[in-house]
Amino acid sequence: MRPLFHPALEDIRPEAILYALSDPERVAIYAQLAGASGGGTCSALAQLGDRVIPKSSLSNHFKVLRESGLILSERQGIEMHNQTRCAELDERFPGLIKAILLAYAQIPGQPKVG
Amino acid sequence: MRPLFHPALEDIRPEAILYALSDPERVAIYAQLAGASGGGTCSALAQLGDRVIPKSSLSNHFKVLRESGLILSERQGIEMHNQTRCAELDERFPGLIKAILLAYAQIPGQPKVG
Repeated sequence: MRPLFHPALEDIRPEAILYALSDPERVAIYAQLAGASGGGTCSALAQLGDRVIPKSSLSNHFKVLRESGLILSERQGIEMHNQTRCAELDERFPGLIKAILLAYAQIPGQPKVG
Repeated sequence: MRPLFHPALEDIRPEAILYALSDPERVAIYAQLAGASGGGTCSALAQLGDRVIPKSSLSNHFKVLRESGLILSERQGIEMHNQTRCAELDERFPGLIKAILLAYAQIPGQPKVG
């Protein structure tokens, strides 16, 4: 099985972060991960509010989040365990993720910042 | 001549802002406009560095910036006058634009904080 690619902190680019979070579905997934203390698995995240994300889209969303540097994914048996890289990202790009999540939280129907 | 479309402040979406600023060329254009318009929360960045953007790309970049709600464009004779909507955007999405520009400023070769 191929190892999962994660960029090193110093290689993370703002354009990749912004692109990854320019999709409301990915933001919803990310926000839920950020809110859950222990991360989450794909199956746990299939339903977000009244929005249902097809499984086929879900794995691509996780890939974009991972390769942009937003999340850390680990295979655990047949499941994938995901968590945010929020703390290290906040050192590299201070205030960026929080400002983005807060902006989405202004929009009705978007996930709220926990 | 068709009127230029600008979204009302309340219709501006975070995903459109993030998408528009997920392109380093557009960020460079935006940063230069922000620097040219004087003070305010968006004036952190003013220099384009050595980057030269082809004219053919420029008009599309301005269109994306305008339709996302980032800039205000006015035809003045045969010229287009552009300015940022930074102040009103900062009320709607506090800290968002500044955090994005600061993130880009961390990257070598990107516009520097002035």
